[in-house]
Amino acid sequence: MFQDFTATTTPDQGPPRLARLREVLTAEGLDGFIVPRADAYQGEYVAPRDERLAWLTGFTGSAGFAMVLADKAGVFVDGRYSEQVKAQVAACFTPVDWPDVTLGEWLLREVAGSARIGFDPWLHTVAQIETLETTLRESGIALVGVANPIDRIWEDQPDPPTAPATAQPLEFAGEPHTDKRARLASQLAKAGQACTLLTQPDSIAWLLNIRGQDIPRNPIAHGFALLHRDGTVDLFMDPVKLETLEPHLGSALRVHAPDTLRPTLRSLDGPVRLDKATTPVILAETLAEAGVAISWDSDLCALPKARKNAAEIAGTTEAHLRDGAAMCDFLAWFETAAETGITEIDVVRKLEESRRATNALLDISFDTIAGSGPHGAVIHYRVTNETNRPLTAGDLLVLDSGGQYRDGTTDITRTLPVGTPGEEERAAFTRVLKGMIAISRLRWPRGLAGQHLEAIGRVPLWQAGQDFDHGLGHGVGVYLCVHEGPQRFSRLSDVPLEPGMILSNEPGYYRPGAFGIRIENLVLVEEAPAIADGDAHRKMLQLRTLTHCPIDRRLIDRSLLAEEEIKWLDSYHETCRRVLRGRVASTTEMWLDHATAPL
Amino acid sequence: MFQDFTATTTPDQGPPRLARLREVLTAEGLDGFIVPRADAYQGEYVAPRDERLAWLTGFTGSAGFAMVLADKAGVFVDGRYSEQVKAQVAACFTPVDWPDVTLGEWLLREVAGSARIGFDPWLHTVAQIETLETTLRESGIALVGVANPIDRIWEDQPDPPTAPATAQPLEFAGEPHTDKRARLASQLAKAGQACTLLTQPDSIAWLLNIRGQDIPRNPIAHGFALLHRDGTVDLFMDPVKLETLEPHLGSALRVHAPDTLRPTLRSLDGPVRLDKATTPVILAETLAEAGVAISWDSDLCALPKARKNAAEIAGTTEAHLRDGAAMCDFLAWFETAAETGITEIDVVRKLEESRRATNALLDISFDTIAGSGPHGAVIHYRVTNETNRPLTAGDLLVLDSGGQYRDGTTDITRTLPVGTPGEEERAAFTRVLKGMIAISRLRWPRGLAGQHLEAIGRVPLWQAGQDFDHGLGHGVGVYLCVHEGPQRFSRLSDVPLEPGMILSNEPGYYRPGAFGIRIENLVLVEEAPAIADGDAHRKMLQLRTLTHCPIDRRLIDRSLLAEEEIKWLDSYHETCRRVLRGRVASTTEMWLDHATAPL
Repeated sequence: MFQDFTATTTPDQGPPRLARLREVLTAEGLDGFIVPRADAYQGEYVAPRDERLAWLTGFTGSAGFAMVLADKAGVFVDGRYSEQVKAQVAACFTPVDWPDVTLGEWLLREVAGSARIGFDPWLHTVAQIETLETTLRESGIALVGVANPIDRIWEDQPDPPTAPATAQPLEFAGEPHTDKRARLASQLAKAGQACTLLTQPDSIAWLLNIRGQDIPRNPIAHGFALLHRDGTVDLFMDPVKLETLEPHLGSALRVHAPDTLRPTLRSLDGPVRLDKATTPVILAETLAEAGVAISWDSDLCALPKARKNAAEIAGTTEAHLRDGAAMCDFLAWFETAAETGITEIDVVRKLEESRRATNALLDISFDTIAGSGPHGAVIHYRVTNETNRPLTAGDLLVLDSGGQYRDGTTDITRTLPVGTPGEEERAAFTRVLKGMIAISRLRWPRGLAGQHLEAIGRVPLWQAGQDFDHGLGHGVGVYLCVHEGPQRFSRLSDVPLEPGMILSNEPGYYRPGAFGIRIENLVLVEEAPAIADGDAHRKMLQLRTLTHCPIDRRLIDRSLLAEEEIKWLDSYHETCRRVLRGRVASTTEMWLDHATAPL
Repeated sequence: MFQDFTATTTPDQGPPRLARLREVLTAEGLDGFIVPRADAYQGEYVAPRDERLAWLTGFTGSAGFAMVLADKAGVFVDGRYSEQVKAQVAACFTPVDWPDVTLGEWLLREVAGSARIGFDPWLHTVAQIETLETTLRESGIALVGVANPIDRIWEDQPDPPTAPATAQPLEFAGEPHTDKRARLASQLAKAGQACTLLTQPDSIAWLLNIRGQDIPRNPIAHGFALLHRDGTVDLFMDPVKLETLEPHLGSALRVHAPDTLRPTLRSLDGPVRLDKATTPVILAETLAEAGVAISWDSDLCALPKARKNAAEIAGTTEAHLRDGAAMCDFLAWFETAAETGITEIDVVRKLEESRRATNALLDISFDTIAGSGPHGAVIHYRVTNETNRPLTAGDLLVLDSGGQYRDGTTDITRTLPVGTPGEEERAAFTRVLKGMIAISRLRWPRGLAGQHLEAIGRVPLWQAGQDFDHGLGHGVGVYLCVHEGPQRFSRLSDVPLEPGMILSNEPGYYRPGAFGIRIENLVLVEEAPAIADGDAHRKMLQLRTLTHCPIDRRLIDRSLLAEEEIKWLDSYHETCRRVLRGRVASTTEMWLDHATAPL
């Protein structure tokens, strides 16, 4: 079982550790220290040794940070975690609504006069520290990069992970790393950049066609890489992870111990391309102090990685069919089990079991969200033994999950009724579905970004005075991170959508304390074929749906759907039946036929 | 008659003037000179003395510029004017597709080695010259601000306009200028700015509750103003324009001759707030050379001007009813006259006549666009005696027009069939209508900008492989400019929409060489009332339609409309009938009843 349900922290652990940290800060002449959730790679999941925030405070959410002062310690979390943080931290910690209150604003309010605030320059990006310094300018509050004091007081802190990496077969990667390196190197040459420092493990994994096991859920290996204008790479990664990979990596790839990175940076001829949004402050400073020119730019791998090639598309298509069949096997079971007193944990177990039965599951792509009744309104709900809840007639269950397979990464949400759903729930579900169908059916002229299109999936909710407080969709990798940039269906995303990009299409609706609804398919951006009467000169794009799995018809109020929406849904279900019928368990076939019948 | 149809230039005028200009450039040691359409105020309309581009080249479009070199002279125009420029300029001018080719790129290509390119620093903004200098950096091409050589060789160049300005009555302005000045002055104080230089005549007109007559179509007076942190204003404007306004302006407003502006700037204590996008280079340089600190920021009046107050809303509502009734009187005439051999010019004349009959028309708000048949596909078509075309059975007529009234500015487009329209035209018209209705019916959460919403009005066209190449809507003033920022329904606009803003809602469709379609109403952003089952905590906005005038039912394919779209249209028409019936000519009543019957 990948997922577990035990609470790993208690509120009690916090106070003595906080006291000990404050002693160290005083000894170092610091008035405060920032403890982020992030590691040096700024990903969503961190290794056990990097769980400094949870170790210190007890808070285990996937985003946030603590600001420890002598007399106050704020724990900054966003709306998703405002309830969780109260349950997980002791009274010596003060929850702060972030980003409504930013760290800079809070410091200006809490710190009288001058102060020295420490931070670990490995754990903060250049952009983060720049923003904070701008806010604190003229305040007398100075930011000081220091060796992490938590690492000194955390006695049984685990070692960094050293799990072996593996090669991603060309069959699934679609392009040898030699070609990728040459392609990107020519971009460096064109931009007049000598090399680029890659600090995102999924960028490195994509570039070198490797996958790792350093953290759960995301198949990446921690490390940094320098890609040079001649196409060669210096990889700074514990060599023990790469022992079996010599033939795959070849001679243009030089492996170095991680602690040689900074000396190497000092010896470079610039300009070195760096991404402000992801590069740890310490690495930019190392270059600057050695007089090496920096060229601020985006992550060189981000866009090429986002534009999936034919092999990646074929792989992820297959992974989605496999995963869809596993979902159906689960759903067929759920339909009979739902009202027999099963709990959220039973649901998570059974679903993972169903995916494991494919014999291809390498991990789940994130911890399954199984939120029943009021838990469904907690957008990032993770069930534990403490919160576990039996499903009750009238509940909706929001079930958001995915699998990591060698050929692809999946992410699917279905909302399921337990017993007979209420009318209000059905109306809201149908509006969410209308938005999801509007995005699925969309055709649009090339050049637009997520920020231009996202609203189209919200209009049906807006018309009813409703909305949801998360983006409509995120980018997804191919056997890589389930959250991948830069493409997003978000009002903040100005990166034009391009053929080959994979995104989620996941509108929702949440009534706090009552119920939640979310419907999610993954979609692939592709060129739209010409249409009779269409403008011949316009290059248009459309979405191909990758996810195949029935959408629960009991939750749909047919009278709220337009003809073309019914047509889309019936056609989607017909496709589901056709492509999944040979893949589901024989005991699921009847369920599938029934679940995919026309509305 | 405000509009006229005579061509004011000929291609023949260009060559001798170009030769004379080149002589002056040689004498001055310049290798080239930029001749923009713009005046120092960067508006859409310019005074006769500022028609330098038309005088030199013959090109009369509302946007563009010429780049004169010793052996080549490029005339840069956008897609709207690519045909017109060919007809208007002589062979010594080379049309350039702009902005596909930028001025900087063209110069890099055409100029070998080093060169001194002159420009008039009154006619270019800081942002324009910065962008150009960035492109030319390291090229050996230097930009040199010079006194305008055209003004030396243009012997009968008209004087600057000196038409008297008038006070905008408080009844329509809604807020005394004392209050406006105090309100904005406190914003300056808060931002630590000593004063701001206002260079946009409509900002000054709004701030001081005055209107002018210096140029056609836009009721503004040319001038510059300094608003100080104490709320007082120095106005640099020919005093002759303000002779009757002393009581209105009061003692906190000091009027100065325009030529005292630069000496005054030199004597200021900064920081002076300036908008890079609109401030003439020479004024920023004057400050910089005198060591006065500059604070780059947006036009301080832009947002307050865009948020119309209750009096402005009441005024423009009344202006739209008056204008809608005049439109109906025209349309009733048109229905019988359309197939009697009338021309585009007849249409423009009759429509202006109908608006004049209100006895309230102060000007038209822009030159009426009356494009029949293939002319309808020319988005900014202006009929002249040369292009005038008789309406023919089967034509569509795109009729885009508006009026300037003391209480408001209108802008309306209706597309009208001549005889029986074709099926393809009706289908496209209905899709445009669907988009227009989608925007009209929209409700959305506060905080979103035009770039987030515009696509909603395009989806029906996109689904058919069609689109249109202009924004969905622009901001509109109240007895001010018909094109007003910063609010826009455009993929480029990131300014959140706020209650009180007025925008156009004008999707279209254009088949070059065949036909055009556009439907335009003005809409007002307002708070949306709560809805049963809506999220209680969400502040939502909606649009109130200001324009009332029937949409031609003969062009609608009812089978393509959803029930709620039919409901919207029937309800809109019912309202039109109710609010206009007492205002139209008695001979129009029957037409109105018929035109507003349910679908």
